[in-house]
Amino acid sequence: MTTVKPSNSRLSQKVFDDIKENRKTKHINNFWKDLSHNDEELYNTWNELKSVMSEGEIPYLYKEMIYIAVSIANNCNYCIHSHTYAAKKAGMTDTQQKELLRVILMANKTNALATALGTELDDVFDVSKEEEIRK
Amino acid sequence: MTTVKPSNSRLSQKVFDDIKENRKTKHINNFWKDLSHNDEELYNTWNELKSVMSEGEIPYLYKEMIYIAVSIANNCNYCIHSHTYAAKKAGMTDTQQKELLRVILMANKTNALATALGTELDDVFDVSKEEEIRK
Amino acid sequence: MTTVKPSNSRLSQKVFDDIKENRKTKHINNFWKDLSHNDEELYNTWNELKSVMSEGEIPYLYKEMIYIAVSIANNCNYCIHSHTYAAKKAGMTDTQQKELLRVILMANKTNALATALGTELDDVFDVSKEEEIRK
Amino acid sequence: MTTVKPSNSRLSQKVFDDIKENRKTKHINNFWKDLSHNDEELYNTWNELKSVMSEGEIPYLYKEMIYIAVSIANNCNYCIHSHTYAAKKAGMTDTQQKELLRVILMANKTNALATALGTELDDVFDVSKEEEIRK
Amino acid sequence: MTTVKPSNSRLSQKVFDDIKENRKTKHINNFWKDLSHNDEELYNTWNELKSVMSEGEIPYLYKEMIYIAVSIANNCNYCIHSHTYAAKKAGMTDTQQKELLRVILMANKTNALATALGTELDDVFDVSKEEEIRK
Amino acid sequence: MTTVKPSNSRLSQKVFDDIKENRKTKHINNFWKDLSHNDEELYNTWNELKSVMSEGEIPYLYKEMIYIAVSIANNCNYCIHSHTYAAKKAGMTDTQQKELLRVILMANKTNALATALGTELDDVFDVSKEEEIRK
Repeated sequence: MTTVKPSNSRLSQKVFDDIKENRKTKHINNFWKDLSHNDEELYNTWNELKSVMSEGEIPYLYKEMIYIAVSIANNCNYCIHSHTYAAKKAGMTDTQQKELLRVILMANKTNALATALGTELDDVFDVSKEEEIRK
Repeated sequence: MTTVKPSNSRLSQKVFDDIKENRKTKHINNFWKDLSHNDEELYNTWNELKSVMSEGEIPYLYKEMIYIAVSIANNCNYCIHSHTYAAKKAGMTDTQQKELLRVILMANKTNALATALGTELDDVFDVSKEEEIRK
Repeated sequence: MTTVKPSNSRLSQKVFDDIKENRKTKHINNFWKDLSHNDEELYNTWNELKSVMSEGEIPYLYKEMIYIAVSIANNCNYCIHSHTYAAKKAGMTDTQQKELLRVILMANKTNALATALGTELDDVFDVSKEEEIRK
Repeated sequence: MTTVKPSNSRLSQKVFDDIKENRKTKHINNFWKDLSHNDEELYNTWNELKSVMSEGEIPYLYKEMIYIAVSIANNCNYCIHSHTYAAKKAGMTDTQQKELLRVILMANKTNALATALGTELDDVFDVSKEEEIRK
Repeated sequence: MTTVKPSNSRLSQKVFDDIKENRKTKHINNFWKDLSHNDEELYNTWNELKSVMSEGEIPYLYKEMIYIAVSIANNCNYCIHSHTYAAKKAGMTDTQQKELLRVILMANKTNALATALGTELDDVFDVSKEEEIRK
Repeated sequence: MTTVKPSNSRLSQKVFDDIKENRKTKHINNFWKDLSHNDEELYNTWNELKSVMSEGEIPYLYKEMIYIAVSIANNCNYCIHSHTYAAKKAGMTDTQQKELLRVILMANKTNALATALGTELDDVFDVSKEEEIRK
């Protein structure tokens, strides 16, 4: 749809201010604007995202790459573009972008192959069976 | 299907030997065994995989995480298990596995939200428009 | 594609008249216009839809919500918009729309989790096993 | 995978007790058992689910039907079975189950048709355009 | 689920007899057995299938290949196996099966690429624009 | 995205020349133009496509139909349009296009049904079991 005017509810404004501060930008993405008409969902989604993407043991840049991979598999055009933009801002090099694409295409290929073949799980993959074998 | 006996064609044997050497293991996954009945596809897929996953500017461990993310989005049970196994062998910690899952779930959520909202792309995401604006 | 002119075959006109009468409107959706170039498919699809959506033991409004849920999961932008429009005309409140979205997001999340975990079916879910147990 | 033993962490036990009380049952589904090894995710998912599915303006039974619809579209075998089980416990009749299936199949069909045709959105579906027109 | 006993309703028996005669076999697939508990759906689905798959301008064998392609893309393990079985019975050679797989993998790959790139439609693909240009 | 200017790297130009010669056209599709900024991927994808689609035991026209089927299932709007265009150029009749659509819709329907039912594989579909039975 053509993006509607963002809501100006108090909760929405609070989230928008937090996005601007957190991302050091004046630009609010259309996604957040559209979501602002459901301002509780906006509030929850933004806070969940902030928590999930903040650094832990997976560096932020690789989290953005994982995000892009899921978005391509789910065919979400908006998400592919917004997270590619974010990943580039976070330093993704051209070479990394090409490698990322190759991994995604490769995974897609062997996913389709394993599905086509209907391959059964190897026992070694199964932690619980492994434990039984050890006994 | 119940995994059939692997092919013992010359080409298959060559690939199996390469897998064993490359992965320092005697175990050949059911996926490769099933694929061996189409031995040219086996040969090509294995060589492509070796090339794609070998280190470049994205460390191998993160490539495996991206592989898992695509496999979950594509609902490939076999691939989820085999690449989780590979990622753990490559040193994925419990914390990283939990963070990976959270990123995947978050991406799934905002993918569904952007789809539900039908949000339009922001101009800033579009490199070609950006170039026009710059002129 | 840019929506082409609707076909003016006899069968198409008959379906268009039925849509207008059935929906108390003069507007024919682009979907039916595009489909009119395959007028047998148009005829069958419209009649099937009329039958499926007419009230039975699931009230019409909830059928439209189920339709929206499937359309989001299948990433069909057109269908999401046309059925949200229909659901609103049928009385879907803002609160219901928000609840619907939350159920869809929740289902998406546990779907991805069950897929990631590869969880096995509980015996209690399986009617046939249940019957065996009862014997 | 073969379902592993549930975790016996304190947080897991707390969630299990809440599930038992909330559902008036002694049976914990394999899904929750598998998830218990990531007990924070277990805690959050269970609490989110309880909140989402509790009655509001969409009756619980229809929420379960929406859940089933998404699970079929996402091809989650476990989720289809567990939520069909829940819907039946909540009073879904055989007729309703058949109607639900028909709506899902119909939505799938028109989703595929709209995708195949690449149909463009009607202006009437677009709230923001509608507002512009009104001015 | 473990396949339940087929229904022995009159309508189901009629369909089973037609399947046996039509396919020159005594074996009824589990799919039809499971579906027999919803015997109207069984009746409609079987008759629709018979009509769709009967020869027209696309030879039956290629229809089965198209069926396999959709089933792999939709990740339907049962359907992949049952239609591969049918295609082989209809004369699909080993070479054709390998070519089919290669086309499916190739389509998957360029589908993912076009999605990742977000490529816009060429004007030449659009029949309606083409007509405008001609004027 | 709005299609960006194609790369004018040497490798890209070589591929563009080959496309023009191979397809007897002066028009380069947007897909190849967009991909040209990753010119190795362009080179590999084009050569793979040429090889996969060249005639073998499945006539080229039916390969294009299979390609369309996968593209609809994967919801790739660009691919549906470009391969429908190609199939028509290769002689796909209106009747064949309608039959193709019907097979795709039918496959989608029984895929969803088999998924909803969770039907178990018949032993006869399983080549390896068949071999065991024969012993």
